[in-house]
Amino acid sequence: MFEVIGERINTSRKLVQAAVADRDAEYIVSDVKKQQEAGASYIDVNAGARIGHETEDMRWLLDTIQPVTDLPLCLDSPDPAVLEMAFGMVERSPMINSISLEKDRFDAMLPFLSGKDCKVIALCMDDAGMPNSSDDIVGRAEKLVKELNGVGIPTESIYLDPLVQPISTDSNKGLMVLRAVRGIKEKFPEVHITGGLSNISYGLPQRKIINRTFVTLMMNFGMDSAIIDPLDEKIMATIKTADMLLGKDKFCGNYLKNVRSGAIVS
Amino acid sequence: MFEVIGERINTSRKLVQAAVADRDAEYIVSDVKKQQEAGASYIDVNAGARIGHETEDMRWLLDTIQPVTDLPLCLDSPDPAVLEMAFGMVERSPMINSISLEKDRFDAMLPFLSGKDCKVIALCMDDAGMPNSSDDIVGRAEKLVKELNGVGIPTESIYLDPLVQPISTDSNKGLMVLRAVRGIKEKFPEVHITGGLSNISYGLPQRKIINRTFVTLMMNFGMDSAIIDPLDEKIMATIKTADMLLGKDKFCGNYLKNVRSGAIVS
Repeated sequence: MFEVIGERINTSRKLVQAAVADRDAEYIVSDVKKQQEAGASYIDVNAGARIGHETEDMRWLLDTIQPVTDLPLCLDSPDPAVLEMAFGMVERSPMINSISLEKDRFDAMLPFLSGKDCKVIALCMDDAGMPNSSDDIVGRAEKLVKELNGVGIPTESIYLDPLVQPISTDSNKGLMVLRAVRGIKEKFPEVHITGGLSNISYGLPQRKIINRTFVTLMMNFGMDSAIIDPLDEKIMATIKTADMLLGKDKFCGNYLKNVRSGAIVS
Repeated sequence: MFEVIGERINTSRKLVQAAVADRDAEYIVSDVKKQQEAGASYIDVNAGARIGHETEDMRWLLDTIQPVTDLPLCLDSPDPAVLEMAFGMVERSPMINSISLEKDRFDAMLPFLSGKDCKVIALCMDDAGMPNSSDDIVGRAEKLVKELNGVGIPTESIYLDPLVQPISTDSNKGLMVLRAVRGIKEKFPEVHITGGLSNISYGLPQRKIINRTFVTLMMNFGMDSAIIDPLDEKIMATIKTADMLLGKDKFCGNYLKNVRSGAIVS
């Protein structure tokens, strides 16, 4: 089934930043519980916004979150030192967010990831910037898989992010990434496809219907994970419905359970 | 762009049957205008439910509808005599609904269609009943295209209906028809894919979210038409959004127009 990486515990969000600054554990615990109840598979934890405080903020967040959830965490930082500390604290094998082909990030992250038991989000970004074509995305994905395999990360632990770009700038940006996902899954059937979705609707009104229609299209070609807000009820209902339609929900059991709980409404 | 065949003028619907029995032109005209405003590309006209009255009901409906719409009509009857009469009345090249591989229907419809200037809905149904696999659907589609080409109907005028079946009876029924659509479009890139959608959700609660999520998946593989109720605002908004995401809406112009008119709401 589709895996939702809950994106809410991020100090770039105002209320989270205030809660972290005030060491308001109640706020953080309540938010994590809500994400779990809504169906998150991972809780992303990003403590990067308070400059100079990332290490201590990350430590406090992990101390606060781990006792109240059974979900694995997604450790979200560009700094290998912060990740190494966090990796030592987590009880369950985490996801690491993220590596890319940008030289600085790549050189910092690859030694950290070497031989570790974890999942990895790998962004199809390099020093030339955002990819310009489906082939470009597929080529970057191949490089990432090869390098990660080389340090002991198996393909089924890699979550490739093809980098969704705004359709308002070019009508073909949707097709570009959809075709890339199809191409990646043809080469690497075991790899996961993840990423943020909301870039697709950047610059347009009524963004949520765009985001949830787009995730449906992406799921058809093999996207099986996304970094989203699990409290967006409509996108969660769409994802569960698409999972059923794509044959991943035997006897429609999960769909029916979610209708009964009120999580899926026409 | 996606073509919506508006399904509302059908005497199997109670209010339409009453309006036809009473020769209540105002009701019919109002319904047709609403379908056109909502974005229908064709108006389906089915007068089959009042046994023994089909010919006169169809004639009255066409006399009532044609003066008030510029849309082409979709003439919906299994009876070639009714269709021949209707074909002689319409001002614009119509769509004919439908032919299938069932021997009785096939033998009746093929001579009627021979050499005519029209679009044709062709159901992947034969005397063995509903198809049982993707290959079965593709095989029936090939037969239909070959036979219709043989009487002068070009492939781009054929609207194949792969026959959507309920996912409540088998979790793989969604994948089966999705893969069939992909297979048909690989063999015949110019053919259209159409059909009803609501069978997919038969037997399940909250059916509309299933139907509109399913049309998104079908559009990803090449469905470019459907027989639906254009007054279902949510499915229409989803179709327009998916058209944009699939690169069929230059500069997002149609999407933005529909947001401004209130037809697309997140």
